[in-house]
Amino acid sequence: MPQNASRLPGRHFLQIPGPTPVPDRIMRAIDMPLIDQRGPEFAKLGKRVLESIKSIFKTTNPVIIYTATGTGAWEAALSNTLSPGDRVLMVETGQFAMLWKVMAERLGLKPEFIKTDWRVGADAKIIEEHLHNDKAREIKAVCVLHNETATGCLSPIADIRKAIDGASHPALFLVDTISSLASTDYRHDEWGVDVTIGGAQKGLMLPPGMSFNAVSDKALRAAKTAKLPRSFFEWDDMLTMYKQGFFPYTPATQMLFGLDVAIEMLHEEGLENVFARHHRLAEATRRAIRAWGLEILCREPRYYSPTITAVLLPEGHDADRFREIALNTFNIAYGASFGPYAKRYFRIGHLGDINDATLIGALGATEMALALAGVPHKKGGVQAALDYIVSSQSGAARAAAE
Amino acid sequence: MPQNASRLPGRHFLQIPGPTPVPDRIMRAIDMPLIDQRGPEFAKLGKRVLESIKSIFKTTNPVIIYTATGTGAWEAALSNTLSPGDRVLMVETGQFAMLWKVMAERLGLKPEFIKTDWRVGADAKIIEEHLHNDKAREIKAVCVLHNETATGCLSPIADIRKAIDGASHPALFLVDTISSLASTDYRHDEWGVDVTIGGAQKGLMLPPGMSFNAVSDKALRAAKTAKLPRSFFEWDDMLTMYKQGFFPYTPATQMLFGLDVAIEMLHEEGLENVFARHHRLAEATRRAIRAWGLEILCREPRYYSPTITAVLLPEGHDADRFREIALNTFNIAYGASFGPYAKRYFRIGHLGDINDATLIGALGATEMALALAGVPHKKGGVQAALDYIVSSQSGAARAAAE
Amino acid sequence: MPQNASRLPGRHFLQIPGPTPVPDRIMRAIDMPLIDQRGPEFAKLGKRVLESIKSIFKTTNPVIIYTATGTGAWEAALSNTLSPGDRVLMVETGQFAMLWKVMAERLGLKPEFIKTDWRVGADAKIIEEHLHNDKAREIKAVCVLHNETATGCLSPIADIRKAIDGASHPALFLVDTISSLASTDYRHDEWGVDVTIGGAQKGLMLPPGMSFNAVSDKALRAAKTAKLPRSFFEWDDMLTMYKQGFFPYTPATQMLFGLDVAIEMLHEEGLENVFARHHRLAEATRRAIRAWGLEILCREPRYYSPTITAVLLPEGHDADRFREIALNTFNIAYGASFGPYAKRYFRIGHLGDINDATLIGALGATEMALALAGVPHKKGGVQAALDYIVSSQSGAARAAAE
Amino acid sequence: MPQNASRLPGRHFLQIPGPTPVPDRIMRAIDMPLIDQRGPEFAKLGKRVLESIKSIFKTTNPVIIYTATGTGAWEAALSNTLSPGDRVLMVETGQFAMLWKVMAERLGLKPEFIKTDWRVGADAKIIEEHLHNDKAREIKAVCVLHNETATGCLSPIADIRKAIDGASHPALFLVDTISSLASTDYRHDEWGVDVTIGGAQKGLMLPPGMSFNAVSDKALRAAKTAKLPRSFFEWDDMLTMYKQGFFPYTPATQMLFGLDVAIEMLHEEGLENVFARHHRLAEATRRAIRAWGLEILCREPRYYSPTITAVLLPEGHDADRFREIALNTFNIAYGASFGPYAKRYFRIGHLGDINDATLIGALGATEMALALAGVPHKKGGVQAALDYIVSSQSGAARAAAE
Repeated sequence: MPQNASRLPGRHFLQIPGPTPVPDRIMRAIDMPLIDQRGPEFAKLGKRVLESIKSIFKTTNPVIIYTATGTGAWEAALSNTLSPGDRVLMVETGQFAMLWKVMAERLGLKPEFIKTDWRVGADAKIIEEHLHNDKAREIKAVCVLHNETATGCLSPIADIRKAIDGASHPALFLVDTISSLASTDYRHDEWGVDVTIGGAQKGLMLPPGMSFNAVSDKALRAAKTAKLPRSFFEWDDMLTMYKQGFFPYTPATQMLFGLDVAIEMLHEEGLENVFARHHRLAEATRRAIRAWGLEILCREPRYYSPTITAVLLPEGHDADRFREIALNTFNIAYGASFGPYAKRYFRIGHLGDINDATLIGALGATEMALALAGVPHKKGGVQAALDYIVSSQSGAARAAAE
Repeated sequence: MPQNASRLPGRHFLQIPGPTPVPDRIMRAIDMPLIDQRGPEFAKLGKRVLESIKSIFKTTNPVIIYTATGTGAWEAALSNTLSPGDRVLMVETGQFAMLWKVMAERLGLKPEFIKTDWRVGADAKIIEEHLHNDKAREIKAVCVLHNETATGCLSPIADIRKAIDGASHPALFLVDTISSLASTDYRHDEWGVDVTIGGAQKGLMLPPGMSFNAVSDKALRAAKTAKLPRSFFEWDDMLTMYKQGFFPYTPATQMLFGLDVAIEMLHEEGLENVFARHHRLAEATRRAIRAWGLEILCREPRYYSPTITAVLLPEGHDADRFREIALNTFNIAYGASFGPYAKRYFRIGHLGDINDATLIGALGATEMALALAGVPHKKGGVQAALDYIVSSQSGAARAAAE
Repeated sequence: MPQNASRLPGRHFLQIPGPTPVPDRIMRAIDMPLIDQRGPEFAKLGKRVLESIKSIFKTTNPVIIYTATGTGAWEAALSNTLSPGDRVLMVETGQFAMLWKVMAERLGLKPEFIKTDWRVGADAKIIEEHLHNDKAREIKAVCVLHNETATGCLSPIADIRKAIDGASHPALFLVDTISSLASTDYRHDEWGVDVTIGGAQKGLMLPPGMSFNAVSDKALRAAKTAKLPRSFFEWDDMLTMYKQGFFPYTPATQMLFGLDVAIEMLHEEGLENVFARHHRLAEATRRAIRAWGLEILCREPRYYSPTITAVLLPEGHDADRFREIALNTFNIAYGASFGPYAKRYFRIGHLGDINDATLIGALGATEMALALAGVPHKKGGVQAALDYIVSSQSGAARAAAE
Repeated sequence: MPQNASRLPGRHFLQIPGPTPVPDRIMRAIDMPLIDQRGPEFAKLGKRVLESIKSIFKTTNPVIIYTATGTGAWEAALSNTLSPGDRVLMVETGQFAMLWKVMAERLGLKPEFIKTDWRVGADAKIIEEHLHNDKAREIKAVCVLHNETATGCLSPIADIRKAIDGASHPALFLVDTISSLASTDYRHDEWGVDVTIGGAQKGLMLPPGMSFNAVSDKALRAAKTAKLPRSFFEWDDMLTMYKQGFFPYTPATQMLFGLDVAIEMLHEEGLENVFARHHRLAEATRRAIRAWGLEILCREPRYYSPTITAVLLPEGHDADRFREIALNTFNIAYGASFGPYAKRYFRIGHLGDINDATLIGALGATEMALALAGVPHKKGGVQAALDYIVSSQSGAARAAAE
């Protein structure tokens, strides 16, 4: 921003790992007059979204919708299924895994925390070992983040399911998909997840203020005996009212208007196309980073996140200062860094309603900001991304031209 | 609606007791591109609203802002200040008081419930007696709804404070102002309230999805030893982050944009003018009801609510059927009835951004719908309201003409 | 407004004769990102609205859409069909008829102006006489306002068509429907109108900025030889481009988004229902005025306007001062007065997306403002309106209840 | 777009030469309830924008605001100042110059048309010669487009002023700034322009539907004797009403809300910063084109447009097909080609609320679409743009970091 200006021109590039840029169509759906949350028009809306949201989780079971951000849905998942003193197995994939663990402790649970160096996802084999060793079957739940928002590492949920089964362990399987839902393949039913935690403000392209619990029959059974105190997050109240399309207390009606449209838009594009797009954008981003000669925080390709990529800066370079220069000069926001790598990396969010040209704009701003910030790097990152997208899109373009 | 139409024309009269009609200026403030909830622009917004919201509660202490509807703020108030097994004194003013009591039980508290017939507010004297009788000082909190949304009865908070003091009782004082805040006088500090629970979607003129805890120093001290498990609603996390204008986890950023404008608008009108307007609309409504020959649910004028008036229908007339006819013919929504009076009354919400002409439209629709529904009544309700408003506004008009 | 307030609370009652209150659904459709006015998405939109707008005019001929307000469409109608020095027959129904006549003079036409006292519509018999007397067939066009916006008098277009035919006169028939279109029955084809001039900001429920010419084959033939200079308003350029759904120069794309939805909404309600609603609101308004003991400007019931009613104040009472008091106290805007009756009357617009309850609110504000302004009147106007609407709606309510 | 999708994801890149992407802040200002265009609130708005718009034209004289797109403002400029049969000197810079000439003919003027090959701007020397040769001073006006939207060539208005003065010619000077206003330096008063024609939907960042005439005293004097018929576009009606902040007929009120904010935003950024940004984006675009080995339509650097750059494709490559592939694959729209070069070039609009990252996204989409469309080119265009912006922004970044 020039020194005598009080306005940064043009569109803000919101490349944080969420909230993501909300499409205008969704924002306008939210921006409509309020209706009676107990009236017939609401009942129709309620029934429709309570049904259609299931397709996003790939479940035929109920999905509970909370007026709360993801942290609330974490608490709901734990408090509806567990009892004070219950042991839970968690994996320290990064900052958000750590926060969930702290929550478990506060609620009176006993988390067992599998360590990592914050540069990989959860390892199914290690989980299997832990469960094998739990001869007394004291572990009541395995809690994993599908995508660790803080590091950009994706964990193999289907493999972890197999690990639990391999250990013949009866623990519940609780999965956080806050920064992966509606961006990459996820199958609540097929993968045997008991509670899937989701949020509105990432792949679902909504503003923050809504979160989800998709539940299995096993989870619903567990809820009947779970003794953690709960009220606002009580599943049972919700499920009772859902039959009429209503909520037990006033929901965020405007967010439901938005959710209705968001689900419609995801299906217009096609979920598989949405996933393919996210994978293309992620790979283009990684190619740019490699061309710059910088390091991707996620150490192993098998854990690469389709939604977030964290970029390590060379020793001695402050990632927060880099982010500040990029924001002030190019109107772009990235995610911050955490824990052992605080100030060492920045995160590029490439999820939600982002297309190829927007990503190129973001990567272009990044390459320029690296130069302006004096971060040692090679040119050519954007070029590498362009080349990859061209190769990836050539089929689509041929189809469009025919 | 004519039988061959699929659209009800004109503006919907949302006369439920909340959510209330959100002013366009607030909706458009919400309908703006998302920003980084960890960036410098957000920090400014956060600091500004965290400060300005205090003026609404008339407190100099912190106000905690939750991404949750009022039910969440209820839970926050209880779980941050109390421990399992604590006794709390509550008053059964109506449906919402009952729901709060159920919540207290679920959380492991032991509520003592003062009964009423649902047609009055809380009686300060009875509360004082209860506290006097609690020689062992086992009651840890007195929990009262300032305005019982289900019945339209307002309780005298200042008097109840005096009652607690009169009994020299150390209990915390927890007050729900969800359907009274920013609509009628309320003084968190002066009245010695320890936790005030507020919501966005009533007098604050916002969509649902945000709620509040205003806290006293005594409440903050209580939080240090309170043993109810809590995490999402933990005050301490909030207060720590508030210093930088941030939240411990992603807040509903768009709602904060709206809150910022809502507070500004309340001060533009002037809080005292806002309160006078609500009292004028309430009295006009009651005069209409009396002219119709119908009964106001709230039995005693000292408990009349400035925001909601419940109207009893004569025996044998179904209030839900009346509401349906009114909605389908005149595009107006009222609140439903509860508990012992289910289907016996409907509630007119006259709170939020409602002016004289809108109220007359709503009362007109009501008078017409009474006729169409065959509910026995006298004409002249709207006329009585007009006469009252004219007498009440004559000073304002003189000032405007000068 | 209280003296220390800077904001009038609640919804503004925009009861001017247009622009009318725009439904949120239309405003949000307008509030969408811009698209290429030469691209494929626009072509679909253009073709759709150019076709659907015909149903509003009840024509199968083209309707030309201008980015201009009604005054522009007046000029277009004249300049595309007439040549310098042409005589045109016009009727002085009021202020807008007078403005159209001044325009005709400025463009080099020679208007013959049938006088009235501004309290009636156009008289078909007098028009027939004039045409009979024009033995040389020098009159090239008869120009009439369907609804004189300045006075609230509706002219009988079908009768005037018969009058022209009765005189076997070849003149073109040009009709302004700016304040009647989409509010009361109008049949471009059946009534043999050659150019119908319409506007967006009245019955079509759009913001100002768009106007229309529906054209007959005869008008299109006349355009081939019409010699008035024109360019921006040239029909031929428009018709050529319309074949592809495009416009010869950048149209107001956002207004077209809105038009698309507005037409859809009119058909959802049903045009006949829309007309019935306007007639009901108009009659309720007139009953209120009579109950107040005030005079309706329009002298003869056969000319009563379904969209606008002008109310004469007693001698010595300034209608502008009344309007100011009403605006400042009750947040309601009326139309001003003109010409011989300047400051003697105010106009209530009851057109566009207005329903019964909104009208009652507006009439209530009016009755209260009459009292506050000290205008002599009887009470009971609103009551008369309520009674009329109840009697008129009882059928609809019965249907809704079944 | 994948074949089984019905939605193109992400933000549309609207890189046509206008309408330009409208900032959300402006769209939300437009998306507000309508007000009485004769009421006191409107009067304040009217006075404010009629004053502030002058700063955009750099004039102290009145600016007339039309509810019409640029074509209407062209007609207004001609019809208010000229009389039938008047000779006007025009320069065939491209398609829009040609359309203006056709308009002049239709209105009964006699244009003298200086030819070009559509690859340069207007040459001041040639204009001076023409005026010298007009010994009888029959040329009444010199009409020039500051920026030819169809080709991306900018004409030197200050030099042409000097040319007119050099020839001591009394002709009026009429300048079209539709695609340059508020994007590059323009000085109505200092450059002695008599009528400046502007439009809303380009540098002013508004939707289409509004246009302008900035007028000199000499132009106002000419209007008193100008004989071209006019009514909708009559300046005099406008200027009379402007004294009270009103318009002679209903203006596009919502567009005025938007204009008010647009002017505010331009000054927040600073007009000189706005101009510098446009020059930076234009130069970055040209460097990309050269790196691709493609040809810029504008032949001479002194005529380079700061807002639009037209790119010639190699012989045998259809620019319309290229645009279609780019739109369908990368959600980007460019301007089409005209006249002698139809289908030979596409135009990149880099004007309005566009920042560096958005331009890089657009150039990236272009480079990728060139590859997908099989247009022979070299890689490296985006890289060249990045390098240029880095060098250009390094000062700004240093300032931001300090």
